[in-house]
Amino acid sequence: MSESVGVSLLGAGNIGAGVIAALAAGSSRYASRVGRPIEVRRVMVRDVERTRAGLSPQQIVGRLEDVLGDPGTQIVIEVMGGEHPAREAIEAALRSGRHVVTANKEVMAKAGGELLKVAADHGVRLLFEASVGGGIPVIGPLSRDLLANEVSAITAIINGTTNYMLTAMTQKGADYADVLAEAQRLGYAEPDPTADVEGIDASYKIAVLCGLAFNVEIRPDEVSRQGITSITARDIAYAERLGYVIKLFAGARLIGGAVAATVQPTLVGANEPLAKVDGVLNAIQIEGDLVGRVLFEGPGAGAGPTASSILADVLDVAQDVVAGRRPLAFVPRRRLRVAPPEEHEARYYLRVTVLDQPGVLARIAAVLGEQRISIASVIQFDRASADGTAELVFTTHQASGGAIQTAVAAIRSMDVVREVGNVLPMAG
Amino acid sequence: MSESVGVSLLGAGNIGAGVIAALAAGSSRYASRVGRPIEVRRVMVRDVERTRAGLSPQQIVGRLEDVLGDPGTQIVIEVMGGEHPAREAIEAALRSGRHVVTANKEVMAKAGGELLKVAADHGVRLLFEASVGGGIPVIGPLSRDLLANEVSAITAIINGTTNYMLTAMTQKGADYADVLAEAQRLGYAEPDPTADVEGIDASYKIAVLCGLAFNVEIRPDEVSRQGITSITARDIAYAERLGYVIKLFAGARLIGGAVAATVQPTLVGANEPLAKVDGVLNAIQIEGDLVGRVLFEGPGAGAGPTASSILADVLDVAQDVVAGRRPLAFVPRRRLRVAPPEEHEARYYLRVTVLDQPGVLARIAAVLGEQRISIASVIQFDRASADGTAELVFTTHQASGGAIQTAVAAIRSMDVVREVGNVLPMAG
Repeated sequence: MSESVGVSLLGAGNIGAGVIAALAAGSSRYASRVGRPIEVRRVMVRDVERTRAGLSPQQIVGRLEDVLGDPGTQIVIEVMGGEHPAREAIEAALRSGRHVVTANKEVMAKAGGELLKVAADHGVRLLFEASVGGGIPVIGPLSRDLLANEVSAITAIINGTTNYMLTAMTQKGADYADVLAEAQRLGYAEPDPTADVEGIDASYKIAVLCGLAFNVEIRPDEVSRQGITSITARDIAYAERLGYVIKLFAGARLIGGAVAATVQPTLVGANEPLAKVDGVLNAIQIEGDLVGRVLFEGPGAGAGPTASSILADVLDVAQDVVAGRRPLAFVPRRRLRVAPPEEHEARYYLRVTVLDQPGVLARIAAVLGEQRISIASVIQFDRASADGTAELVFTTHQASGGAIQTAVAAIRSMDVVREVGNVLPMAG
Repeated sequence: MSESVGVSLLGAGNIGAGVIAALAAGSSRYASRVGRPIEVRRVMVRDVERTRAGLSPQQIVGRLEDVLGDPGTQIVIEVMGGEHPAREAIEAALRSGRHVVTANKEVMAKAGGELLKVAADHGVRLLFEASVGGGIPVIGPLSRDLLANEVSAITAIINGTTNYMLTAMTQKGADYADVLAEAQRLGYAEPDPTADVEGIDASYKIAVLCGLAFNVEIRPDEVSRQGITSITARDIAYAERLGYVIKLFAGARLIGGAVAATVQPTLVGANEPLAKVDGVLNAIQIEGDLVGRVLFEGPGAGAGPTASSILADVLDVAQDVVAGRRPLAFVPRRRLRVAPPEEHEARYYLRVTVLDQPGVLARIAAVLGEQRISIASVIQFDRASADGTAELVFTTHQASGGAIQTAVAAIRSMDVVREVGNVLPMAG
């Protein structure tokens, strides 16, 4: 019988260092909760020569075999990030009989279902609270606290970078490029911001949430995805005058027997709880048949919040280790048809630049009418420009994505239309 | 080996009927999750003659022994409410080796520590997610998802009746009595509203949360408690002009080695997330050393939300029953010194009616100064009344409750002071 629960880390960057520091700071509390101390056994890093706070040279190793070869390691914490070689390392750890705790949204989005099966086959657990929403409990609540519900929809703000940027654009009336530069200067955006601003990061997270909320497997490339790069200060100003704010929503819902998952900029009614989630905060709203709507809000990133979620998982599985509890039975995920964007229903916001001529509005309205899209409002907020063009903002009643696509293609080809700007769904 | 997991209910009112209906509606989903069907065995009611939807006469019983005498009952769901005889029934069920799921805030607040010990001694679990915040997951997140944190503070809006009333007073400028009458008409307030408007209900819930967040036992009568009956439309209007809204906060924090728990109307900065929680919604904000602040928001009452929480607990323990998993080790709660209101620190709002004479403001300021309370602002919002009095609103910098109490007593005894109105803490 071992006298401690042994954990080893794969990776010791910002998140890994945060986990090691938190384990040291909370050691006596954790020991009394678990019943045995939690011991950091090995930490796998790329640069084994570098000294690291709180670690002895004996703990630092360079190869996965040095971790998996340690019989005292019962739990492996994966904080390398990225798909490869993290995915292979997680799988090897599970196959060696180790419980795994990971913060890796990309691996869990792309291979979560398979890896959970590997874990079940080897009698160990794979936990991933930190992969979505940083420190916000969401995997746990979906897995346990809301389990009695038939979940109908998830709507989430789960990318702090883009929420910071959209909030800054809203509050300062600033343009995308200026706000991106500021976010990069403050460290809220990467030098290459693609994964955030194109919604790729959010698509991983909504895919992970689909697995839990609906018990449905969906690949991140099946998430219908639109980033924030096309959002202009004008869109935000128009939205505000309509009583809305623009947020990058990651959403998923069941439509009949199909699943629809999206990441897209959305006009959100200013009084909706999600409209008030500003800056780098994240929030996840879940709708269930029994509970109605619940909202979880908090810090979506950072070493402390991520360590909070990783260590919650570590304590959970460490308690199981001490009690000799076996994992619960594995429930395989379903594959459902993925509803394409054409089938998504929403109200829409449509910004169109037209020649400032009589009859233009009527012609566009007729095209929408042909697709049975009913117009809720048409507003020309500003006077026509000096170049003889004017900007019209249409909002529609509920319409299918397919009808909108067809109508937009027809509007774009009209001789009096200079440009179809953003076409965005509206919520709340 | 039984082929189902047997649950019996104590009570079949609004909540019990909701649980029975939800169990029927979700039966196949629950069976596939648990691995066996969940079977409703017995339902204990006062009126055994009445027929009840979804129940056969054989299931309806009148005595606790009829439930505990059923060998097929593995889980008892207590939804009677009130302290007695619910407390004795829960204890008897635990002693008979049954797991218990309860929605009973009063019993869990007054006897939670003892009953959890009884459960541990008998190798069974006592679960109570539904006792606080209706359908909002909060017991689960505190017990598991935030367990790695040293929690420093909880701040919560956990009484829907009073939040509905304060929201209505804020939005309509209405007075307390009118809003109470309307809430009673809509069914949001009881004919005898005492438990809600005096903060008693909230004091039970914050005591339950203290047990989980700090692992500290505190009795509800140790919660420093002030209801909303003294809040006037004027207080709400003054707060608004200062940039605040008034909410009934239930709060708990550790002050050195002591625990402070309060229920009191509080001025909340209008941009704080909790300031935006309106109507019958509940919200719980938790501050931890790792996570920072997280907020959980949703419906705090109702048959559906409460069934969501009760059935989450039922599914959790049913999975244990099927897997033959033993409960985790019992961690007894600590007793800490309870910090009296005199030791609570806050900024304060103080409304004073005075004779409209020169020098009065200076005299009151001098009394505050004697207690080393520094004034942040003094405002006379309205002209003096026809009766020769004027109303002054003071806001202070951080001060101890003791200093405020002493100062208020001195101010009240001044010849130029007609009345000291509300003295309320300010947050955010």
